[in-house]
Amino acid sequence: MPHIDFKNDLPGIRSAMAFRPETAAPLSALAEVLMRSDEGLTRLEREIIGTYVSHLNDCFYCNHSHAAIACIYADGDSQMIDSVRADYTSAPISNKLKALLAIAAKVRKSGKLVQAEDVEKARMEGATDKDVHDTVLIAAAFSLFNRYVDGLATTTPADMTSYSVRARQVADHGYGAHIYSPNPMKAK
Amino acid sequence: MPHIDFKNDLPGIRSAMAFRPETAAPLSALAEVLMRSDEGLTRLEREIIGTYVSHLNDCFYCNHSHAAIACIYADGDSQMIDSVRADYTSAPISNKLKALLAIAAKVRKSGKLVQAEDVEKARMEGATDKDVHDTVLIAAAFSLFNRYVDGLATTTPADMTSYSVRARQVADHGYGAHIYSPNPMKAK
Repeated sequence: MPHIDFKNDLPGIRSAMAFRPETAAPLSALAEVLMRSDEGLTRLEREIIGTYVSHLNDCFYCNHSHAAIACIYADGDSQMIDSVRADYTSAPISNKLKALLAIAAKVRKSGKLVQAEDVEKARMEGATDKDVHDTVLIAAAFSLFNRYVDGLATTTPADMTSYSVRARQVADHGYGAHIYSPNPMKAK
Repeated sequence: MPHIDFKNDLPGIRSAMAFRPETAAPLSALAEVLMRSDEGLTRLEREIIGTYVSHLNDCFYCNHSHAAIACIYADGDSQMIDSVRADYTSAPISNKLKALLAIAAKVRKSGKLVQAEDVEKARMEGATDKDVHDTVLIAAAFSLFNRYVDGLATTTPADMTSYSVRARQVADHGYGAHIYSPNPMKAK
């Protein structure tokens, strides 16, 4: 049961965003520009980083929501997403993304853990300064999203098929429509 | 030395924001609406929560930047801010703010740590659902800001007087002017 009365029955972060539209607007805008930029990292790479951080933070809602979005960008290859979560070092992804996931995993714990060597390694695999910047900010942003979702004990859809329905909406229309579009998820 | 070339000599979060204005806009907007709202929590209470989380995360730049802003709102009472950081349970602040700081400290570690009892305690001291919401989101937002600042190894002004100069700009003009206003801080 949520810690506060959201006055809506939306699931996950959407309940908190509908409760406080003033803060929802910049949060949606951040997700839109950070997760759907086509410059540098691909949308798939961005969603994989967000999914991985949410997985490590054990945030069920964000983990499954963003895995479903990543899956769409990966043309349905859910096995690849699963293998990243299980052990990204042996997953069928680029060495560049592996090096960036190593940075993201450190940022999740603390920004202070990132060493010049970590960044150098990513650079050797072709990462630009912008790629490193976006990786750090995605990992930091999911540190926010995961805490927002779980810190208020938002509800989690029990019906797992709802995640892919919602993911399709985000993939097609973006995070700007995150709150107000019709709700395919039923909170448990 | 920063992990990437920001192509500017701004300190702390401002160097990363100037490097990537597309993500800086929603981040500034979030800070503006979340930290300078006068509804429910006061600006001072909001800055105390942000300062405390940054202190616990050992983020020097955010800790001292926001302590300086809080100090302005507290009419120069830096001792009060120091006592919150040292041990908020015995600081000269309201029981409501103490209960909210307990929630913020948990969110900093993980949203999952927040229990219904923590929220009930805050409610008993007069906290509304909106106060609890804003506290969780402030703690979550500083979980982002701290990681963004330290994960990219941004520079930290060595001259401690620069923090109060900058704080006065934010107190007077807000976070919207965060990036582009003249820079009183010299990065070390």
